[in-house]
Amino acid sequence: MLPEPQRDSLDVVLVSPRNPLNIGAAARAMANFGLRRLSVVAPFEPTWREARSAIGAPELLVNAVESATLAEAVASCTLVVGTGTLTYRKPEQRVVPLPELAPIVSRELARGGRVALCFGSEKHGLTREDLSYCQLLVEIPTDPLQPSMNLGQAVAVCLYELTRSADAAPTTPVPSFTSAPSSERLDLLAVVIEEAMRAAGYSPRAMQEANRHDLRLMLRRLDLSAHDTRRILGLFRRILWRINHLGR
Amino acid sequence: MLPEPQRDSLDVVLVSPRNPLNIGAAARAMANFGLRRLSVVAPFEPTWREARSAIGAPELLVNAVESATLAEAVASCTLVVGTGTLTYRKPEQRVVPLPELAPIVSRELARGGRVALCFGSEKHGLTREDLSYCQLLVEIPTDPLQPSMNLGQAVAVCLYELTRSADAAPTTPVPSFTSAPSSERLDLLAVVIEEAMRAAGYSPRAMQEANRHDLRLMLRRLDLSAHDTRRILGLFRRILWRINHLGR
Repeated sequence: MLPEPQRDSLDVVLVSPRNPLNIGAAARAMANFGLRRLSVVAPFEPTWREARSAIGAPELLVNAVESATLAEAVASCTLVVGTGTLTYRKPEQRVVPLPELAPIVSRELARGGRVALCFGSEKHGLTREDLSYCQLLVEIPTDPLQPSMNLGQAVAVCLYELTRSADAAPTTPVPSFTSAPSSERLDLLAVVIEEAMRAAGYSPRAMQEANRHDLRLMLRRLDLSAHDTRRILGLFRRILWRINHLGR
Repeated sequence: MLPEPQRDSLDVVLVSPRNPLNIGAAARAMANFGLRRLSVVAPFEPTWREARSAIGAPELLVNAVESATLAEAVASCTLVVGTGTLTYRKPEQRVVPLPELAPIVSRELARGGRVALCFGSEKHGLTREDLSYCQLLVEIPTDPLQPSMNLGQAVAVCLYELTRSADAAPTTPVPSFTSAPSSERLDLLAVVIEEAMRAAGYSPRAMQEANRHDLRLMLRRLDLSAHDTRRILGLFRRILWRINHLGR
C-alpha cells in the first residue's frame, strides 16, 4: 500500500471507456489497492451514467472527475504515464516495462509530485494524440500471441505493481526546487514556444500540426524541472515580445 | 513469461465459479501471461456452458479440464497454492504474500514439479475443505477497507506476479530424488494413515472428520519428498497389516 498522503497523488485516468463493467472493475481495483482519485475523459455518456449509478458503486466512482480531454485531466500532474500494447505501434517516448515502473513513480510521489496512470478505450487504447501528453509508456509484459489485456485487469495489474513494495519505497522528501512542472505548465510552455516559432516564421502552416505534436513529446522527454520550465518560458516570452516589437 | 516447457506445469484451478464473465476473464489473463492449463471444479453448469461457448473463447477455455472435486483437479500437482482474503479466516497453513510467491513456484517448476493456483467462488472463496488441500496460501496485499478482489482481476494479478521475473528465475534441474509427492500421493498416504489410526483404535468415531482434516493439513505442511512419502506409506501399510493380522 502507498503511504496515506500519497494515495491522493496517484490518479487513474480512463480515456473514452465504453463498457460500464470495465469502469466498475477499474474502480474496484483502485479500492482494493487503496487509491481514490479516478478521472474519466470523454466517456460514452450512457455507459458512464450506468457505471456511476450501479448498486454498490464505490465512493471513488461516484466522486470521479469527468473531463473533455486528456490534457485537461492531467493538467496538474507532474508525471503522466500511458499504458497499452506496443505490438502495433512504434512508441515515440521512453518505454518502461511494468516491473520497473514502481521506483520511478515512488520517486515522483516522494518529491511531492502528482502522477497520472492513463488507460485508453477498450477498442483502440490511447491515441497518438493522447500519448503525446505522456512522459513515458509502461508496457505489461504479456505473451506476444495474446498481448492485449482486458481494461479492468490491466488496471488491477498496474496498481498491484505500483503498491507492491510501496512500504519499502523511499519517502525522503526532496527539496522543492527540483520538482517537476505540471502537464498544464508544459502545455503553456509549448504554446509560447509555438507562438515564437510562428512569429519567427520557423514553422510553415502545413507543418504546424506535426511540429506541435513533436514539441509536446520533446518537452515531456526532456525531464525539465519546474525551475527549468520557468526559465525557458521567460526566455520565449522575451523572444516573442522582441519579435513582435521589431515587426511594428 | 515462463520458459516454454514450464507453461504446461502451472495450472489455474477455478473452484465453483458462478459468473461466466469471470471465467472468461480468468482465461483471458492466462492467455495474456502465456499459460494454457485451466481446470474447473464443480462449475455451475449453465454458467460453464455459456463461458465455454462464448464467441472468441480462447482455446484454453475450450480445452479446460472439468472435475468434481478439488482433490481430483490437483491430484497430479506437487505444490497446491490457495488464494483468498484472510480477513475473516484464521489460516491453518503457511501464508505467503504474493510478492514472495514467485521464487517458491519457480523452484518447484524448475525441479520438474507441477503447481496449481486455486481460486474459490466469487461469493465465498475457497472453503476450509478446499484449503486443506493447499500447501500454502497466498495473500494479495490489498487495502483492509476493501480486501476482496474480483475473480478475473485476482487471477490477472497473480499470473502477472508469477511471470513477472520468470526470465531471471533459476532453471537448474534438481536431482529427481528430492522431488515432491503429488497431491494424489499425499491423499493415499492420508488414507492409509487414517486406516491405521482406526485399526489401532486411535481415533474415536466423533473425531474422525476433524482428524482427517488435520492430517491432510499436516502432510502438506511437512514438505515431504516423494522418497519420504514412499517410506512413510510403506511403514503404515506394514502397521496396518500387522494390526489386522493380530486381530484375527
